[in-house]
Amino acid sequence: MVCYVFKNFDKHVRVGKLVCLARTYREHAAEMNSLVPSKPLVFLKPESAVIFNNDSIIIPRMSKCLHHEVEMGVVVGKRCKNATCDEALDYVLGYLVALDITARDIQSEAKKHGWPWSVAKGFDTFAPISDVVLKDKVLDPNNLDISLKVNGEMRQSSNTRYMSYSVEQIIEFVSSIMTLKRGDLILTGTPSGVGEIVDGDILEANLGDICFLKVYVRKQE
Amino acid sequence: MVCYVFKNFDKHVRVGKLVCLARTYREHAAEMNSLVPSKPLVFLKPESAVIFNNDSIIIPRMSKCLHHEVEMGVVVGKRCKNATCDEALDYVLGYLVALDITARDIQSEAKKHGWPWSVAKGFDTFAPISDVVLKDKVLDPNNLDISLKVNGEMRQSSNTRYMSYSVEQIIEFVSSIMTLKRGDLILTGTPSGVGEIVDGDILEANLGDICFLKVYVRKQE
Repeated sequence: MVCYVFKNFDKHVRVGKLVCLARTYREHAAEMNSLVPSKPLVFLKPESAVIFNNDSIIIPRMSKCLHHEVEMGVVVGKRCKNATCDEALDYVLGYLVALDITARDIQSEAKKHGWPWSVAKGFDTFAPISDVVLKDKVLDPNNLDISLKVNGEMRQSSNTRYMSYSVEQIIEFVSSIMTLKRGDLILTGTPSGVGEIVDGDILEANLGDICFLKVYVRKQE
Repeated sequence: MVCYVFKNFDKHVRVGKLVCLARTYREHAAEMNSLVPSKPLVFLKPESAVIFNNDSIIIPRMSKCLHHEVEMGVVVGKRCKNATCDEALDYVLGYLVALDITARDIQSEAKKHGWPWSVAKGFDTFAPISDVVLKDKVLDPNNLDISLKVNGEMRQSSNTRYMSYSVEQIIEFVSSIMTLKRGDLILTGTPSGVGEIVDGDILEANLGDICFLKVYVRKQE
């Protein structure tokens, strides 16, 4: 049974809402034939999608094409509304590496009609996350290597400095819309190299030398 | 300070995720020049958007046009995955009346580009909810009058029997995608008659003779 609590913390830090950004890396926007918009695109994933190290992503029957998207996650440490860039990092508990698993076929159909993305992004197991690393262990969140290997082969490799927005700008923007609270998780968007994952794949994600995530892929039984 | 706990329950029933449906009433789909899709459209609102009786909806500076959408809310009573229609109501704690406040200008722009709806639907105060009425007080959730008055004038008036899906079908569908847990709230979509709300408006929503909600509208200071 999934427990929606960050794995290396006690029960008082349970996973809150998952606020996700899209098209924050120019090269990924380009590979999707999309522009980087003037403000980040924001969507939500349900907390019920969260899984942890050594768990498995389950390919749901409704989809024929899942994609991997490796992302830096920012865990909120305390209540935050209308934060400014100057103070934004005060609200951070720590960082993690995450996968924003996406049913690309369902998302493409949704985009065509102007429908929401929540089904494509919201199936159980579609938000694998690593342990949280506390912020004092992270010199600069805006300069961390991020990568994903599938079956040992590098598929995504970038650095958070190539994001179009800093972590501070992201917190300022998101908290101008919605109140963030302890345990909320911001997924900051994916670099280029997204691609399909299939039954039997092994995914290994890294953020800096600090966050590691290994998960498996299997079909719904 | 907003407390994300259902108002007439103790702290053990805190508001979980808000899973929302769109285009579940044919007349509303028609007024939006949209079709009723073969499956319900699903989107998420953040729990931070929740307010209660006598609170105020705040018009954010980012939007020039808020719309009201009155909806029946179904509160989940226990963990639920892949429920069948036959057992679906076993997972229900109760019902409430809610408003799915929408920044229509932001949503229209998002639809045009195929972007997610989460900003348009996700500002703080955009999810006013009434107290929960326990399910044993509700004879048939699929036959409840639902209405909204703005400044005493009827704007939306329908009955849940005009939904294209029963509460049972909605729970079956949503729980086939994502695990629901105690405190999660499903907003079941709005009937026709949606329209703009402005600074100073008073909104009064009713579901059956059992749920009442009164909230105010004011501009961001």
